[in-house]
Amino acid sequence: MGGPPDPQELVEQARAGKQLAVARLISMVENAGPQLREVSAALTPYTGRAHVVGLTGSPGVGKSTSTSALVTELRARDRRVGVLAVDPSSPFSGGALLGDRVRMGEHAGDDGVFIRSMATRGHLGGLSWATPQALRVLDAAGCDVVVVETVGVGQSEVEIVGLADTTVVLLAPGMGDGIQAAKAGILEIGDVFAVNKADRDGARRTVRELRNMLHLREADGADAWEPPVLSTVASRAEGVDALADALDAHLAWAEKSGERDRRRRERTRREIEAIGMEQVRARMERVRGGAALEALTERVLAGDLDPWAAADELLEQSG
Amino acid sequence: MGGPPDPQELVEQARAGKQLAVARLISMVENAGPQLREVSAALTPYTGRAHVVGLTGSPGVGKSTSTSALVTELRARDRRVGVLAVDPSSPFSGGALLGDRVRMGEHAGDDGVFIRSMATRGHLGGLSWATPQALRVLDAAGCDVVVVETVGVGQSEVEIVGLADTTVVLLAPGMGDGIQAAKAGILEIGDVFAVNKADRDGARRTVRELRNMLHLREADGADAWEPPVLSTVASRAEGVDALADALDAHLAWAEKSGERDRRRRERTRREIEAIGMEQVRARMERVRGGAALEALTERVLAGDLDPWAAADELLEQSG
Repeated sequence: MGGPPDPQELVEQARAGKQLAVARLISMVENAGPQLREVSAALTPYTGRAHVVGLTGSPGVGKSTSTSALVTELRARDRRVGVLAVDPSSPFSGGALLGDRVRMGEHAGDDGVFIRSMATRGHLGGLSWATPQALRVLDAAGCDVVVVETVGVGQSEVEIVGLADTTVVLLAPGMGDGIQAAKAGILEIGDVFAVNKADRDGARRTVRELRNMLHLREADGADAWEPPVLSTVASRAEGVDALADALDAHLAWAEKSGERDRRRRERTRREIEAIGMEQVRARMERVRGGAALEALTERVLAGDLDPWAAADELLEQSG
Repeated sequence: MGGPPDPQELVEQARAGKQLAVARLISMVENAGPQLREVSAALTPYTGRAHVVGLTGSPGVGKSTSTSALVTELRARDRRVGVLAVDPSSPFSGGALLGDRVRMGEHAGDDGVFIRSMATRGHLGGLSWATPQALRVLDAAGCDVVVVETVGVGQSEVEIVGLADTTVVLLAPGMGDGIQAAKAGILEIGDVFAVNKADRDGARRTVRELRNMLHLREADGADAWEPPVLSTVASRAEGVDALADALDAHLAWAEKSGERDRRRRERTRREIEAIGMEQVRARMERVRGGAALEALTERVLAGDLDPWAAADELLEQSG
């Protein structure tokens, strides 16, 4: 591999469309390696441009098929596209299991597409921390659109996708339907809804139910955004042009209404917090090479100390 | 409500089986109120006894029906039982939506059962932080078994349940099947598997597939635990006695093998870390009444500062 890569040079290569440079940069931020700060500083001048699209839905609604079809559509519109798959059940992130290479293959060799799966089994809060870092790399690499695909359950996952510029909630007829979505708390985060597998029985009913449920959300005023409910058959690319149009329309609205600024501000605020918390976690683990945490753990287990007092001591020692 | 409740007295009332005292204690820890430390210290002498059972599976496999049936079975065995529902799609935690009261009703008036749903839409990492706190309350209240029910997707959710003394993975025939479970990473965390809705088509095949997949997990030695694959119809309480037996058998093995100690140690370690991180998050938000974080956020948005440098400044100021 030669010496350690120069972050500045990697960023330039990434901006020139080099897949390898993008991959290395993401690895460098994901692994929180020694060059992380340098990388982060090198990315900064180029960030803040990409349209961040969150795409979510229950397992089985066709998230990865939809993502793939959307990528194809956006490429036809000459957009540079990044994909971050945070979904553990996605073939993009599923590693060795099932169809992974097949799907990747659709976009392989296209240097206008960057696909990256996020490791979701890291430590506490790792996902909330690592996702915005990888997002910044794709943004700085010049992606016009970055699709963040997460499964629509799980606190971290819903939080991540809920702070996108535009959030797409996918549903399928007869499963993960409107009521399930409402229960999982993903109805309120959707800017655009798509009922996928719309060639199946019950699709119209699901669209209708969904529209009724959305009408119950209060409108915030005359210029409020009304989330469209689309029908797609992603496996045949049907309705995906309308989906891409809806993303553009929502972005235009969000720019004008100030909603995009609001979400970017909130994303950035949380990113700073997550980095701070991650720093502290790493420091806590390093106190006396981990021996401090181990000793405090034993004292809590023995009933000598409560975990709050233990955390206080550890923070004190790591300060 | 009178004055602020005395934590010591609340803990005694909770141990005497008073539902209201348990609920108040959990609220006090969940909301991280001013008496939190006092509560935590008062709980400490009584914790570490409960058998912590994680129960997980994809949406729709029948987690809450299974939990409810398991509670009934454990009550018949004269155990005191706590339930923490971390699952956003659970009727236990679903709030106003669907059947909530109906299910709660089954165990209402039984002062040997404590059911609590966790708010899952808190801030970053809130779930990882709050769940062990609530668990300590139920443990100290004298629960013999605490069932932590989470949906089997989502980083925080899988982490929480994966550190239980015994983890039950629920599946259903023809959906959320073995391969989905493998993809979601919940195959490796299961100590006991139950194919629920076993009266449906394909149940036998799912059991067989699952057994085959589990055989691929390496055995760690002669005294390794071999996860049983059970069949249940929770809605008719079928197979739930065998499930309760399997929980007991796994606990006995985990005690003997040292696995229970290992998991308790890891749970405690993460709990201390999560408390430390939460403390730091709260401190970061308090710097100049939140103005510091806001100002740093603006500078990052303007491209003047990268988020790492911003986090450093914030930590510095909050120290």
